[in-house]
Amino acid sequence: MKGRQKLSSGYLKEGERLDDLQVNGYEIIQNPGKFCFGMDAVLLASFAKVKKGEKVLDLGTGTGIIPILMTVKTDGEDFTGLEIQEESADMARRSVKHNHLEDKVHIETGDIKEAAEIFKAASFDVITTNPPYMIGQHGIANANSAKAIARHEVLCTLDDILRESAKLLKFHGRFYMVHRPFRLAEIFSRMTAYGIEPKRMKLVHPYVDKEPNMVLIEGSNKGNSRIKVEPPLIVYKKDGSYTEELLTQYGMGKAL
Amino acid sequence: MKGRQKLSSGYLKEGERLDDLQVNGYEIIQNPGKFCFGMDAVLLASFAKVKKGEKVLDLGTGTGIIPILMTVKTDGEDFTGLEIQEESADMARRSVKHNHLEDKVHIETGDIKEAAEIFKAASFDVITTNPPYMIGQHGIANANSAKAIARHEVLCTLDDILRESAKLLKFHGRFYMVHRPFRLAEIFSRMTAYGIEPKRMKLVHPYVDKEPNMVLIEGSNKGNSRIKVEPPLIVYKKDGSYTEELLTQYGMGKAL
Repeated sequence: MKGRQKLSSGYLKEGERLDDLQVNGYEIIQNPGKFCFGMDAVLLASFAKVKKGEKVLDLGTGTGIIPILMTVKTDGEDFTGLEIQEESADMARRSVKHNHLEDKVHIETGDIKEAAEIFKAASFDVITTNPPYMIGQHGIANANSAKAIARHEVLCTLDDILRESAKLLKFHGRFYMVHRPFRLAEIFSRMTAYGIEPKRMKLVHPYVDKEPNMVLIEGSNKGNSRIKVEPPLIVYKKDGSYTEELLTQYGMGKAL
Repeated sequence: MKGRQKLSSGYLKEGERLDDLQVNGYEIIQNPGKFCFGMDAVLLASFAKVKKGEKVLDLGTGTGIIPILMTVKTDGEDFTGLEIQEESADMARRSVKHNHLEDKVHIETGDIKEAAEIFKAASFDVITTNPPYMIGQHGIANANSAKAIARHEVLCTLDDILRESAKLLKFHGRFYMVHRPFRLAEIFSRMTAYGIEPKRMKLVHPYVDKEPNMVLIEGSNKGNSRIKVEPPLIVYKKDGSYTEELLTQYGMGKAL
Protein backbone atom coordinates (compact mmCIF):
# COMPACT_ATOMS: atom_id res chain seq x y z
CA MET A 1 0.00 0.00 0.00
CA LYS A 2 1.32 3.38 -0.97
CA GLY A 3 0.56 6.33 1.25
CA ARG A 4 -1.82 7.90 -1.19
CA GLN A 5 -5.13 9.42 -0.27
CA LYS A 6 -8.36 7.63 -1.00
CA LEU A 7 -10.75 9.40 -3.33
CA SER A 8 -13.61 10.72 -1.31
CA SER A 9 -16.92 9.55 -2.65
CA GLY A 10 -17.49 13.16 -3.72
CA TYR A 11 -14.92 12.62 -6.51
CA LEU A 12 -17.03 9.92 -8.08
CA LYS A 13 -19.69 10.88 -10.58
CA GLU A 14 -23.24 9.66 -10.29
CA GLY A 15 -23.60 5.87 -10.63
CA GLU A 16 -19.85 5.23 -10.25
CA ARG A 17 -18.12 3.23 -7.59
CA LEU A 18 -14.53 2.51 -6.58
CA ASP A 19 -13.48 -1.16 -6.76
CA ASP A 20 -10.45 -2.64 -5.00
CA LEU A 21 -8.11 -4.34 -7.53
CA GLN A 22 -6.42 -6.47 -4.82
CA VAL A 23 -2.96 -5.49 -6.10
CA ASN A 24 -0.76 -2.71 -4.70
CA GLY A 25 -3.85 -1.27 -3.06
CA TYR A 26 -5.01 -0.04 -6.45
CA GLU A 27 -8.61 0.85 -7.05
CA ILE A 28 -10.60 1.45 -10.22
CA ILE A 29 -13.57 3.67 -10.96
CA GLN A 30 -16.42 1.80 -12.65
CA ASN A 31 -20.07 2.40 -13.34
CA PRO A 32 -21.92 -0.88 -12.78
CA GLY A 33 -24.91 0.49 -14.69
CA LYS A 34 -22.72 0.86 -17.80
CA PHE A 35 -19.93 -1.74 -17.98
CA CYS A 36 -17.58 -3.43 -15.53
CA PHE A 37 -14.41 -5.31 -16.43
CA GLY A 38 -14.46 -9.11 -16.34
CA MET A 39 -12.11 -11.97 -15.68
CA ASP A 40 -11.02 -11.78 -19.34
CA ALA A 41 -9.24 -8.44 -18.78
CA VAL A 42 -7.51 -9.75 -15.66
CA LEU A 43 -6.31 -12.91 -17.41
CA LEU A 44 -5.06 -10.96 -20.43
CA ALA A 45 -3.03 -8.62 -18.19
CA SER A 46 -1.28 -11.71 -16.78
CA PHE A 47 -0.93 -13.53 -20.09
CA ALA A 48 0.77 -10.54 -21.77
CA LYS A 49 4.53 -10.27 -21.35
CA VAL A 50 6.10 -6.81 -21.21
CA LYS A 51 9.81 -6.26 -20.66
CA LYS A 52 11.45 -3.24 -19.10
CA GLY A 53 11.61 -0.32 -21.49
CA GLU A 54 8.90 -1.59 -23.83
CA LYS A 55 6.04 0.63 -25.00
CA VAL A 56 2.55 -0.80 -24.73
CA LEU A 57 -0.75 0.20 -26.34
CA ASP A 58 -4.12 -1.12 -25.14
CA LEU A 59 -6.75 -0.85 -27.87
CA GLY A 60 -10.25 -0.18 -26.50
CA THR A 61 -9.05 0.27 -22.93
CA GLY A 62 -12.46 1.11 -21.44
CA THR A 63 -11.91 2.15 -17.83
CA GLY A 64 -8.18 1.40 -18.13
CA ILE A 65 -8.21 -1.92 -16.30
CA ILE A 66 -5.59 -3.62 -18.50
CA PRO A 67 -2.86 -0.91 -18.42
CA ILE A 68 -3.42 -0.32 -14.69
CA LEU A 69 -3.07 -4.05 -13.89
CA MET A 70 -0.07 -4.38 -16.23
CA THR A 71 1.87 -1.73 -14.28
CA VAL A 72 1.89 -4.30 -11.48
CA LYS A 73 1.92 -7.60 -13.40
CA THR A 74 4.63 -6.76 -15.94
CA ASP A 75 7.96 -4.92 -16.06
CA GLY A 76 6.59 -2.28 -18.46
CA GLU A 77 6.58 1.41 -17.53
CA ASP A 78 4.97 3.04 -20.56
CA PHE A 79 1.34 2.19 -21.20
CA THR A 80 -1.12 3.98 -23.46
CA GLY A 81 -4.82 3.21 -23.47
CA LEU A 82 -6.98 4.20 -26.45
CA GLU A 83 -10.71 4.51 -25.84
CA ILE A 84 -13.43 5.88 -28.12
CA GLN A 85 -16.03 6.53 -25.41
CA GLU A 86 -15.18 9.78 -23.63
CA GLU A 87 -17.11 8.76 -20.52
CA SER A 88 -15.00 5.59 -20.11
CA ALA A 89 -11.77 7.44 -20.97
CA ASP A 90 -12.62 10.00 -18.32
CA MET A 91 -13.12 7.28 -15.70
CA ALA A 92 -9.83 5.71 -16.80
CA ARG A 93 -7.96 9.05 -16.42
CA ARG A 94 -9.38 9.57 -12.94
CA SER A 95 -8.40 6.00 -11.95
CA VAL A 96 -4.86 6.59 -13.26
CA LYS A 97 -4.62 9.77 -11.16
CA HIS A 98 -6.18 8.11 -8.14
CA ASN A 99 -3.52 5.38 -8.22
CA HIS A 100 -0.70 7.88 -8.90
CA LEU A 101 0.14 6.25 -12.22
CA GLU A 102 0.25 9.43 -14.33
CA ASP A 103 3.92 8.83 -15.21
CA LYS A 104 3.24 5.33 -16.49
CA VAL A 105 -0.27 5.26 -17.94
CA HIS A 106 -1.71 7.64 -20.53
CA ILE A 107 -5.29 7.55 -21.74
CA GLU A 108 -6.19 8.89 -25.20
CA THR A 109 -9.69 9.38 -26.49
CA GLY A 110 -9.89 8.12 -30.06
CA ASP A 111 -11.09 5.56 -32.57
CA ILE A 112 -9.31 2.20 -33.01
CA LYS A 113 -10.07 2.44 -36.74
CA GLU A 114 -7.76 5.48 -36.90
CA ALA A 115 -5.19 4.28 -34.37
CA ALA A 116 -2.34 4.22 -36.90
CA GLU A 117 -3.02 7.92 -37.61
CA ILE A 118 -3.31 8.86 -33.93
CA PHE A 119 -0.01 7.16 -33.05
CA LYS A 120 3.24 6.73 -34.99
CA ALA A 121 3.64 3.64 -37.20
CA ALA A 122 5.85 0.85 -35.79
CA SER A 123 6.05 2.66 -32.46
CA PHE A 124 4.83 -0.02 -30.01
CA ASP A 125 6.55 -3.15 -28.71
CA VAL A 126 3.32 -4.63 -27.42
CA ILE A 127 -0.38 -4.24 -28.18
CA THR A 128 -3.06 -5.63 -25.89
CA THR A 129 -6.77 -5.78 -26.59
CA ASN A 130 -9.94 -7.14 -25.03
CA PRO A 131 -12.17 -6.36 -28.02
CA PRO A 132 -15.92 -6.75 -28.54
CA TYR A 133 -16.56 -10.47 -28.98
CA MET A 134 -19.88 -10.53 -30.77
CA ILE A 135 -20.35 -10.08 -34.50
CA GLY A 136 -22.86 -7.47 -35.65
CA GLN A 137 -25.69 -6.06 -33.64
CA HIS A 138 -28.03 -9.00 -33.13
CA GLY A 139 -30.04 -8.77 -29.97
CA ILE A 140 -28.84 -5.32 -28.98
CA ALA A 141 -31.52 -3.02 -27.56
CA ASN A 142 -29.36 0.10 -27.84
CA ALA A 143 -26.32 -0.02 -30.11
CA ASN A 144 -25.03 3.24 -28.60
CA SER A 145 -24.91 1.95 -25.04
CA ALA A 146 -21.52 1.53 -23.40
CA LYS A 147 -22.23 -2.16 -22.87
CA ALA A 148 -23.17 -2.79 -26.52
CA ILE A 149 -20.05 -0.98 -27.75
CA ALA A 150 -17.83 -3.01 -25.42
CA ARG A 151 -19.41 -6.36 -26.31
CA HIS A 152 -20.51 -6.11 -29.94
CA GLU A 153 -18.59 -5.11 -33.04
CA VAL A 154 -20.59 -1.91 -33.35
CA LEU A 155 -17.74 0.60 -33.62
CA CYS A 156 -14.86 -1.67 -34.61
CA THR A 157 -14.30 -5.17 -35.96
CA LEU A 158 -11.59 -7.78 -35.53
CA ASP A 159 -10.22 -6.72 -38.92
CA ASP A 160 -9.98 -3.07 -37.81
CA ILE A 161 -7.98 -4.10 -34.75
CA LEU A 162 -5.61 -6.37 -36.68
CA ARG A 163 -5.09 -3.90 -39.54
CA GLU A 164 -4.18 -1.06 -37.16
CA SER A 165 -2.08 -3.32 -34.92
CA ALA A 166 0.00 -4.54 -37.86
CA LYS A 167 0.83 -0.90 -38.62
CA LEU A 168 1.48 0.16 -35.02
CA LEU A 169 3.62 -2.75 -33.89
CA LYS A 170 7.37 -2.81 -34.41
CA PHE A 171 8.88 -5.71 -36.37
CA HIS A 172 8.33 -8.80 -34.21
CA GLY A 173 6.28 -6.69 -31.80
CA ARG A 174 3.83 -8.76 -29.76
CA PHE A 175 0.04 -8.74 -29.98
CA TYR A 176 -2.04 -10.04 -27.05
CA MET A 177 -5.78 -10.60 -27.29
CA VAL A 178 -8.48 -12.32 -25.28
CA HIS A 179 -11.48 -13.53 -27.28
CA ARG A 180 -14.17 -16.19 -27.52
CA PRO A 181 -13.20 -19.66 -28.81
CA PHE A 182 -16.10 -19.81 -31.29
CA ARG A 183 -14.20 -17.27 -33.41
CA LEU A 184 -10.82 -19.02 -33.19
CA ALA A 185 -10.57 -20.15 -36.82
CA GLU A 186 -11.49 -16.69 -38.07
CA ILE A 187 -9.05 -15.08 -35.62
CA PHE A 188 -6.11 -17.24 -36.77
CA SER A 189 -7.02 -16.79 -40.40
CA ARG A 190 -7.28 -12.98 -40.13
CA MET A 191 -4.17 -12.65 -37.95
CA THR A 192 -2.22 -14.60 -40.56
CA ALA A 193 -3.69 -12.42 -43.33
CA TYR A 194 -2.43 -9.27 -41.56
CA GLY A 195 0.99 -10.78 -40.85
CA ILE A 196 0.44 -11.01 -37.09
CA GLU A 197 1.41 -14.65 -36.77
CA PRO A 198 -0.22 -16.58 -33.88
CA LYS A 199 2.59 -17.81 -31.61
CA ARG A 200 0.97 -18.85 -28.33
CA MET A 201 -2.53 -19.81 -27.26
CA LYS A 202 -4.15 -20.71 -23.98
CA LEU A 203 -7.74 -21.90 -23.75
CA VAL A 204 -9.60 -21.03 -20.56
CA HIS A 205 -12.12 -23.64 -19.39
CA PRO A 206 -14.51 -22.96 -16.49
CA TYR A 207 -14.07 -26.61 -15.44
CA VAL A 208 -11.66 -29.24 -16.75
CA ASP A 209 -14.43 -31.20 -18.49
CA LYS A 210 -16.25 -28.18 -19.94
CA GLU A 211 -15.77 -26.36 -23.23
CA PRO A 212 -13.50 -23.31 -23.07
CA ASN A 213 -15.22 -19.93 -22.84
CA MET A 214 -12.16 -17.74 -23.43
CA VAL A 215 -8.95 -17.93 -25.44
CA LEU A 216 -5.76 -15.99 -24.78
CA ILE A 217 -3.64 -15.42 -27.89
CA GLU A 218 -0.15 -14.05 -28.49
CA GLY A 219 0.88 -13.00 -31.98
CA SER A 220 4.14 -11.75 -33.45
CA ASN A 221 4.21 -9.02 -36.11
CA LYS A 222 5.83 -10.72 -39.13
CA GLY A 223 6.69 -13.77 -37.02
CA ASN A 224 7.07 -17.26 -38.48
CA SER A 225 4.31 -19.83 -38.59
CA ARG A 226 4.54 -22.00 -35.51
CA ILE A 227 2.20 -21.83 -32.52
CA LYS A 228 2.67 -23.12 -29.00
CA VAL A 229 -0.61 -24.38 -27.57
CA GLU A 230 -0.28 -24.22 -23.79
CA PRO A 231 -1.96 -26.50 -21.28
CA PRO A 232 -5.51 -25.31 -20.60
CA LEU A 233 -6.22 -22.83 -17.83
CA ILE A 234 -8.95 -24.25 -15.64
CA VAL A 235 -10.83 -21.63 -13.63
CA TYR A 236 -12.72 -23.65 -11.03
CA LYS A 237 -12.07 -26.82 -9.09
CA LYS A 238 -14.94 -29.28 -8.80
CA ASP A 239 -15.99 -27.65 -5.53
CA GLY A 240 -16.38 -24.28 -7.28
CA SER A 241 -13.32 -22.65 -5.72
CA TYR A 242 -10.60 -21.10 -7.91
CA THR A 243 -7.76 -23.39 -9.03
CA GLU A 244 -4.24 -22.78 -7.75
CA GLU A 245 -3.00 -21.75 -11.21
CA LEU A 246 -5.64 -19.05 -11.45
CA LEU A 247 -4.82 -17.68 -8.03
CA THR A 248 -1.05 -17.81 -8.30
CA GLN A 249 -0.11 -17.35 -11.96
CA TYR A 250 -3.09 -15.33 -13.09
CA GLY A 251 -3.34 -13.20 -9.96
CA MET A 252 -7.06 -13.38 -9.46
CA GLY A 253 -7.52 -11.62 -6.14
CA LYS A 254 -10.35 -12.43 -3.81
CA ALA A 255 -12.62 -9.77 -5.24
CA LEU A 256 -11.87 -10.22 -8.94
CA MET B 1 -16.26 -62.38 -33.47
CA LYS B 2 -17.15 -63.45 -36.95
CA GLY B 3 -16.42 -66.99 -38.00
CA ARG B 4 -13.71 -66.05 -40.43
CA GLN B 5 -10.45 -67.88 -40.86
CA LYS B 6 -7.22 -66.47 -39.44
CA LEU B 7 -4.48 -65.71 -41.95
CA SER B 8 -1.80 -68.26 -41.57
CA SER B 9 1.59 -66.64 -41.06
CA GLY B 10 2.46 -67.88 -44.55
CA TYR B 11 0.18 -65.18 -46.01
CA LEU B 12 2.30 -62.44 -44.53
CA LYS B 13 5.25 -61.07 -46.46
CA GLU B 14 8.67 -60.77 -44.96
CA GLY B 15 8.87 -58.34 -42.04
CA GLU B 16 5.09 -58.12 -41.68
CA ARG B 17 2.98 -59.03 -38.71
CA LEU B 18 -0.71 -59.25 -37.88
CA ASP B 19 -1.92 -56.93 -35.10
CA ASP B 20 -5.18 -57.35 -33.19
CA LEU B 21 -7.35 -54.20 -33.47
CA GLN B 22 -9.39 -55.10 -30.37
CA VAL B 23 -12.65 -54.44 -32.21
CA ASN B 24 -14.85 -57.07 -33.92
CA GLY B 25 -11.86 -59.39 -33.85
CA TYR B 26 -10.32 -57.39 -36.68
CA GLU B 27 -6.62 -57.61 -37.38
CA ILE B 28 -4.31 -55.47 -39.49
CA ILE B 29 -1.17 -56.30 -41.42
CA GLN B 30 1.73 -54.00 -40.57
CA ASN B 31 5.46 -53.97 -41.11
CA PRO B 32 7.07 -52.64 -37.93
CA GLY B 33 10.30 -52.02 -39.83
CA LYS B 34 8.46 -49.58 -42.09
CA PHE B 35 5.59 -47.80 -40.37
CA CYS B 36 2.92 -48.70 -37.83
CA PHE B 37 -0.24 -46.74 -37.13
CA GLY B 38 -0.40 -44.65 -33.97
CA MET B 39 -2.95 -43.41 -31.49
CA ASP B 40 -3.66 -40.48 -33.84
CA ALA B 41 -5.32 -42.75 -36.42
CA VAL B 42 -7.41 -44.47 -33.76
CA LEU B 43 -8.59 -41.15 -32.28
CA LEU B 44 -9.43 -39.76 -35.72
CA ALA B 45 -11.55 -42.82 -36.56
CA SER B 46 -13.58 -42.10 -33.40
CA PHE B 47 -13.70 -38.33 -33.83
CA ALA B 48 -15.06 -38.58 -37.39
CA LYS B 49 -18.83 -38.89 -37.75
CA VAL B 50 -20.23 -40.89 -40.65
CA LYS B 51 -23.94 -41.46 -41.13
CA LYS B 52 -25.60 -44.37 -42.87
CA GLY B 53 -25.34 -44.10 -46.64
CA GLU B 54 -22.48 -41.60 -46.66
CA LYS B 55 -19.41 -42.08 -48.87
CA VAL B 56 -16.04 -41.66 -47.19
CA LEU B 57 -12.55 -41.10 -48.61
CA ASP B 58 -9.39 -41.50 -46.51
CA LEU B 59 -6.48 -39.56 -48.03
CA GLY B 60 -3.11 -41.25 -47.45
CA THR B 61 -4.64 -44.35 -45.92
CA GLY B 62 -1.37 -46.22 -45.40
CA THR B 63 -2.23 -49.75 -44.26
CA GLY B 64 -5.93 -48.86 -44.19
CA ILE B 65 -6.25 -48.48 -40.44
CA ILE B 66 -8.72 -45.57 -40.57
CA PRO B 67 -11.30 -47.03 -42.97
CA ILE B 68 -11.07 -50.44 -41.30
CA LEU B 69 -11.71 -48.94 -37.85
CA MET B 70 -14.47 -46.69 -39.19
CA THR B 71 -16.44 -49.69 -40.44
CA VAL B 72 -16.89 -50.48 -36.76
CA LYS B 73 -16.90 -47.05 -35.15
CA THR B 74 -19.30 -45.29 -37.54
CA ASP B 75 -22.49 -46.07 -39.43
CA GLY B 76 -20.77 -45.71 -42.81
CA GLU B 77 -20.66 -48.58 -45.31
CA ASP B 78 -18.66 -47.15 -48.20
CA PHE B 79 -15.03 -46.34 -47.51
CA THR B 80 -12.27 -45.65 -50.01
CA GLY B 81 -8.63 -45.38 -49.02
CA LEU B 82 -6.13 -43.62 -51.31
CA GLU B 83 -2.47 -44.51 -50.85
CA ILE B 84 0.53 -43.58 -52.99
CA GLN B 85 2.88 -46.30 -51.74
CA GLU B 86 2.03 -49.58 -53.46
CA GLU B 87 3.57 -51.64 -50.65
CA SER B 88 1.27 -50.01 -48.06
CA ALA B 89 -1.75 -50.21 -50.38
CA ASP B 90 -1.06 -53.90 -50.88
CA MET B 91 -0.95 -54.50 -47.12
CA ALA B 92 -4.19 -52.52 -46.78
CA ARG B 93 -5.91 -54.64 -49.48
CA ARG B 94 -4.81 -57.87 -47.80
CA SER B 95 -6.07 -56.57 -44.42
CA VAL B 96 -9.44 -55.66 -45.98
CA LYS B 97 -9.72 -59.16 -47.40
CA HIS B 98 -8.54 -60.77 -44.18
CA ASN B 99 -11.33 -59.00 -42.28
CA HIS B 100 -13.93 -59.75 -44.98
CA LEU B 101 -14.52 -56.05 -45.60
CA GLU B 102 -14.27 -56.14 -49.41
CA ASP B 103 -17.85 -54.89 -49.77
CA LYS B 104 -17.23 -51.88 -47.58
CA VAL B 105 -13.61 -50.84 -48.00
CA HIS B 106 -11.78 -50.15 -51.29
CA ILE B 107 -8.11 -49.31 -51.54
CA GLU B 108 -6.80 -47.30 -54.50
CA THR B 109 -3.16 -46.71 -55.31
CA GLY B 110 -2.67 -43.09 -56.27
CA ASP B 111 -1.36 -39.64 -55.48
CA ILE B 112 -3.27 -37.25 -53.17
CA LYS B 113 -2.12 -34.37 -55.41
CA GLU B 114 -4.25 -35.88 -58.22
CA ALA B 115 -7.12 -37.12 -56.07
CA ALA B 116 -9.69 -34.87 -57.74
CA GLU B 117 -8.76 -36.45 -61.08
CA ILE B 118 -8.80 -40.01 -59.74
CA PHE B 119 -12.26 -39.58 -58.19
CA LYS B 120 -15.30 -37.58 -59.26
CA ALA B 121 -15.64 -33.98 -58.03
CA ALA B 122 -18.11 -33.41 -55.17
CA SER B 123 -18.57 -37.16 -54.77
CA PHE B 124 -17.74 -37.71 -51.07
CA ASP B 125 -19.74 -36.85 -47.95
CA VAL B 126 -16.73 -37.23 -45.68
CA ILE B 127 -12.97 -37.03 -46.06
CA THR B 128 -10.60 -38.23 -43.36
CA THR B 129 -6.84 -37.79 -43.26
CA ASN B 130 -3.92 -38.43 -40.96
CA PRO B 131 -1.36 -36.57 -43.06
CA PRO B 132 2.39 -36.10 -42.68
CA TYR B 133 2.87 -33.63 -39.82
CA MET B 134 6.35 -32.30 -40.44
CA ILE B 135 7.23 -29.54 -42.87
CA GLY B 136 10.00 -30.20 -45.40
CA GLN B 137 12.66 -32.82 -45.08
CA HIS B 138 14.75 -31.68 -42.15
CA GLY B 139 16.45 -34.50 -40.33
CA ILE B 140 15.36 -37.22 -42.74
CA ALA B 141 17.99 -39.82 -43.55
CA ASN B 142 16.04 -41.29 -46.45
CA ALA B 143 13.25 -39.22 -47.98
CA ASN B 144 12.01 -42.24 -49.91
CA SER B 145 11.45 -44.42 -46.87
CA ALA B 146 7.88 -45.33 -45.94
CA LYS B 147 8.35 -43.68 -42.55
CA ALA B 148 9.60 -40.40 -44.02
CA ILE B 149 6.73 -40.27 -46.51
CA ALA B 150 4.19 -40.89 -43.75
CA ARG B 151 5.67 -38.32 -41.37
CA HIS B 152 7.14 -35.54 -43.51
CA GLU B 153 5.59 -33.50 -46.29
CA VAL B 154 7.77 -35.20 -48.89
CA LEU B 155 5.10 -36.27 -51.37
CA CYS B 156 2.21 -34.01 -50.38
CA THR B 157 1.62 -30.87 -48.35
CA LEU B 158 -1.26 -29.59 -46.23
CA ASP B 159 -2.23 -27.37 -49.17
CA ASP B 160 -2.40 -30.35 -51.53
CA ILE B 161 -4.74 -32.14 -49.15
CA LEU B 162 -7.02 -29.15 -48.63
CA ARG B 163 -7.13 -28.20 -52.32
CA GLU B 164 -8.12 -31.73 -53.39
CA SER B 165 -10.55 -32.15 -50.49
CA ALA B 166 -12.38 -28.93 -51.36
CA LYS B 167 -12.93 -30.36 -54.84
CA LEU B 168 -13.89 -33.87 -53.74
CA LEU B 169 -16.28 -33.01 -50.92
CA LYS B 170 -19.95 -32.36 -51.55
CA PHE B 171 -21.42 -29.02 -50.44
CA HIS B 172 -21.26 -29.04 -46.63
CA GLY B 173 -19.34 -32.32 -46.79
CA ARG B 174 -17.20 -32.92 -43.69
CA PHE B 175 -13.43 -32.96 -43.46
CA TYR B 176 -11.72 -34.72 -40.53
CA MET B 177 -8.01 -34.39 -39.83
CA VAL B 178 -5.60 -35.17 -37.01
CA HIS B 179 -2.50 -33.01 -36.87
CA ARG B 180 0.07 -31.41 -34.57
CA PRO B 181 -0.96 -28.34 -32.56
CA PHE B 182 2.15 -26.36 -33.55
CA ARG B 183 0.62 -25.99 -37.03
CA LEU B 184 -2.85 -25.00 -35.80
CA ALA B 185 -2.79 -21.37 -36.95
CA GLU B 186 -1.58 -22.39 -40.41
CA ILE B 187 -4.16 -25.18 -40.58
CA PHE B 188 -7.08 -22.87 -39.77
CA SER B 189 -5.79 -20.21 -42.09
CA ARG B 190 -5.36 -22.60 -45.02
CA MET B 191 -8.64 -24.42 -44.37
CA THR B 192 -10.43 -21.07 -44.46
CA ALA B 193 -8.57 -20.15 -47.66
CA TYR B 194 -9.84 -23.34 -49.36
CA GLY B 195 -13.39 -22.85 -48.06
CA ILE B 196 -13.24 -25.81 -45.69
CA GLU B 197 -14.41 -23.95 -42.62
CA PRO B 198 -13.17 -25.28 -39.24
CA LYS B 199 -16.27 -26.28 -37.23
CA ARG B 200 -15.05 -28.43 -34.35
CA MET B 201 -11.72 -28.95 -32.61
CA LYS B 202 -10.47 -31.20 -29.84
CA LEU B 203 -7.00 -30.89 -28.39
CA VAL B 204 -5.42 -34.09 -27.09
CA HIS B 205 -3.16 -33.68 -24.07
CA PRO B 206 -1.04 -36.56 -22.74
CA TYR B 207 -1.76 -35.30 -19.20
CA VAL B 208 -4.17 -32.58 -18.04
CA ASP B 209 -1.35 -30.18 -17.12
CA LYS B 210 0.75 -30.82 -20.25
CA GLU B 211 0.70 -29.17 -23.65
CA PRO B 212 -1.42 -30.93 -26.29
CA ASN B 213 0.44 -33.15 -28.75
CA MET B 214 -2.43 -33.76 -31.17
CA VAL B 215 -5.41 -31.86 -32.47
CA LEU B 216 -8.55 -33.33 -34.01
CA ILE B 217 -10.33 -31.02 -36.45
CA GLU B 218 -13.67 -31.13 -38.24
CA GLY B 219 -14.29 -28.81 -41.19
CA SER B 220 -17.31 -28.17 -43.38
CA ASN B 221 -16.97 -27.57 -47.11
CA LYS B 222 -18.36 -24.03 -47.62
CA GLY B 223 -19.59 -23.96 -44.00
CA ASN B 224 -20.00 -20.75 -42.02
CA SER B 225 -17.38 -19.35 -39.70
CA ARG B 226 -18.03 -20.59 -36.20
CA ILE B 227 -16.01 -23.25 -34.42
CA LYS B 228 -16.88 -25.37 -31.41
CA VAL B 229 -13.84 -25.99 -29.24
CA GLU B 230 -14.53 -29.14 -27.26
CA PRO B 231 -13.23 -29.98 -23.78
CA PRO B 232 -9.71 -31.39 -24.04
CA LEU B 233 -9.15 -35.12 -24.42
CA ILE B 234 -6.72 -36.24 -21.74
CA VAL B 235 -4.90 -39.48 -22.57
CA TYR B 236 -3.38 -40.55 -19.26
CA LYS B 237 -4.39 -40.27 -15.63
CA LYS B 238 -1.71 -39.25 -13.15
CA ASP B 239 -0.88 -42.91 -12.53
CA GLY B 240 -0.13 -43.43 -16.24
CA SER B 241 -3.26 -45.48 -17.01
CA TYR B 242 -5.67 -44.44 -19.78
CA THR B 243 -8.51 -42.08 -18.81
CA GLU B 244 -12.09 -43.28 -18.93
CA GLU B 245 -12.93 -40.98 -21.84
CA LEU B 246 -10.15 -42.47 -23.94
CA LEU B 247 -11.23 -46.02 -23.19
CA THR B 248 -14.97 -45.51 -23.63
CA GLN B 249 -15.50 -42.74 -26.17
CA TYR B 250 -12.31 -43.16 -28.17
CA GLY B 251 -12.26 -46.91 -28.08
CA MET B 252 -8.61 -47.43 -27.25
CA GLY B 253 -8.37 -51.14 -26.70
CA LYS B 254 -5.77 -52.73 -24.50
CA ALA B 255 -3.28 -53.20 -27.28
CA LEU B 256 -3.74 -49.90 -29.12
